[in-house]
Amino acid sequence: MEQRFTKITTDGAARRGRYQTVHGSFETPNFMPVATRGSVKGIDTERLKGCGAQIMLVNTYHLWQRPSSELIQRVGGIHRFADWEGPILSDSGGFQVYSLKDIRALSDKGVEFRSHIDGSKCFLSPEKSIQIQEELGVDIAMALDECPAATREHDDIAKSLEMTLRWAKRSLDARQNPNTSIFGITQGAGYRDLRTHAAEALSELDFDGMAIGGLSVGEPKEMMYEVLSYHPRQLPDHKIRYLMGVGTTEDLVEGVRNGVDLFDCVMPTRSGRFGRAYVNGERPYINIKNSGFKEDMTPVDESCSCFCCRKYTKAYLHHLFQVGEMLGPVLLSIHNLTHYLTLMAEIRENIEQGTFNTVYERVKAKWKNFREE
Amino acid sequence: MEQRFTKITTDGAARRGRYQTVHGSFETPNFMPVATRGSVKGIDTERLKGCGAQIMLVNTYHLWQRPSSELIQRVGGIHRFADWEGPILSDSGGFQVYSLKDIRALSDKGVEFRSHIDGSKCFLSPEKSIQIQEELGVDIAMALDECPAATREHDDIAKSLEMTLRWAKRSLDARQNPNTSIFGITQGAGYRDLRTHAAEALSELDFDGMAIGGLSVGEPKEMMYEVLSYHPRQLPDHKIRYLMGVGTTEDLVEGVRNGVDLFDCVMPTRSGRFGRAYVNGERPYINIKNSGFKEDMTPVDESCSCFCCRKYTKAYLHHLFQVGEMLGPVLLSIHNLTHYLTLMAEIRENIEQGTFNTVYERVKAKWKNFREE
Repeated sequence: MEQRFTKITTDGAARRGRYQTVHGSFETPNFMPVATRGSVKGIDTERLKGCGAQIMLVNTYHLWQRPSSELIQRVGGIHRFADWEGPILSDSGGFQVYSLKDIRALSDKGVEFRSHIDGSKCFLSPEKSIQIQEELGVDIAMALDECPAATREHDDIAKSLEMTLRWAKRSLDARQNPNTSIFGITQGAGYRDLRTHAAEALSELDFDGMAIGGLSVGEPKEMMYEVLSYHPRQLPDHKIRYLMGVGTTEDLVEGVRNGVDLFDCVMPTRSGRFGRAYVNGERPYINIKNSGFKEDMTPVDESCSCFCCRKYTKAYLHHLFQVGEMLGPVLLSIHNLTHYLTLMAEIRENIEQGTFNTVYERVKAKWKNFREE
Repeated sequence: MEQRFTKITTDGAARRGRYQTVHGSFETPNFMPVATRGSVKGIDTERLKGCGAQIMLVNTYHLWQRPSSELIQRVGGIHRFADWEGPILSDSGGFQVYSLKDIRALSDKGVEFRSHIDGSKCFLSPEKSIQIQEELGVDIAMALDECPAATREHDDIAKSLEMTLRWAKRSLDARQNPNTSIFGITQGAGYRDLRTHAAEALSELDFDGMAIGGLSVGEPKEMMYEVLSYHPRQLPDHKIRYLMGVGTTEDLVEGVRNGVDLFDCVMPTRSGRFGRAYVNGERPYINIKNSGFKEDMTPVDESCSCFCCRKYTKAYLHHLFQVGEMLGPVLLSIHNLTHYLTLMAEIRENIEQGTFNTVYERVKAKWKNFREE
């Protein structure tokens, strides 16, 4: 298979690259907005493009349950269904399934559970997960993994990792469509020997990209940063590296500095719905519900050129949140996604210029000041 | 004061006109989207313009309570606050106040009540209502009226009407800003002698426009149509005529045929949020939640050129409603407003061509078929 990821240049361990799919390419490092059920909450795809999004993520479990992957396949695939022409990545569905209360059995075969919609019996295996993702018609499918709580004992995590590695191989073997990229996922929590083993074992398989799983799942931030300090570099240099479910802008620059190329997180949209707006300048974010913004007729971020900042003021957004108008959450989600995606564009430019460290230091300093306030 | 309304041409009793404000003009007949708390639910002002909106309506009571008219005045007025450059009309606040449970006293002086937000004592009078509307900075303010239930006895309605007429005079006298248009409102429920009296009495006052109140407030549709059959024509020919809170597209063509120039209603947005989409063709509307649309990859209305119909399919909208994604209500609201505003544009064109009756018959027939189904 041709090489889909191209490494263009580097700046220290930070990498500037491009990933090619049949639905176009995306530049790396990059961040994927999360369209859980096939829409980024409240944001149409034209505005999403306006935020600077090049690729979006959808959740396999949710779309499998409703409207079903078979339906999406029958109507022509997820791109047509959700009106998104660019690349789409899906998760494996595992993460959502493990968070269900009603899991019946987890074995090498796969996982048996009951649907949260209608209680019906469902079964997810590595083969089934790839089948569903190919029915959705995504560009990038994730191998099914097990994602145990990071607090579990070494031997438990090791045992779980062995299953994830067996599943990785089966996921690759399940591919039917040569256009589907499949990424493998490392696990191993905060145990360096397990992470190292995962990296080595998965590197031997013919994945189109490598993902780091099992982080940002409730463990202390120090543990994540410790894993980031060595683990991305253990992954093959010529493959794209995706840090799943991460994170704050501080986490993004920390990831990039350690060689991560791709991120996703619900944080910009979820925080936006609750009134948090990420901003440039001294503080990482403001809370628009703060009464200090009642009569503030400046944009959320003077330095931001997003739709929300071009058109609306803090005073108006504060009002929308006060009275519960849904336009408020929508506008702040647009702003926050733009903030994230603009940072990624700036990171790419600075890697090209060999000045990534200036962005890194700036973002780190602002979160540090904020914690010490 | 200069004439703000220009009657351009007529077709039977239907009128084609234009109304001028310092924030530009709007063509009549026209329909105003309702931005209750300063935003049309879920729709930013750029998309609202895209729907074809030329003027929008805001609710005085809601903005008075939060964020307050004084605040909106301090930050430069409602146009700047809500990012809407075109004309804005506000209601008087009366209608919302009367619907509150905690009204303390209603007298010639005004109405005492407790705020639904914090229980604080508030007082609304004709003078106060105009003051608030001028603080908001709207182009068109409504005189404060009393709007009694249409089911009440003739003598009750007559007594209430006399107070409305006294308040009308006081509303006009309260104007401070010569740029503020003030419209008078007729009441009289379904009683022809009272409607006639209201029309005559208000016609003697120097209002910039005349509104018909007390319809579409729960009375039988026959009563509204009976009033429409004679009442708009009782209002001065050279003034704009506004039928408040109305209605279905059938009501719109019925109003225009009887000489009404302006409408407002929450129906297109509210119905949209509940899954109803107005369409051209045989039926007046479809319910997108209907399982028949599950795999329907055509737009909501093939003949519609709105943002929703250009980009999305019934299958996707059905899915968004099934899973409770807020993009669904937003997109159908955009579609429904476009449907209404496109009909108004078509009505204007047909009045100019002398063919209004073809639109009238088409819309009437489709609602009639629907009722007889």
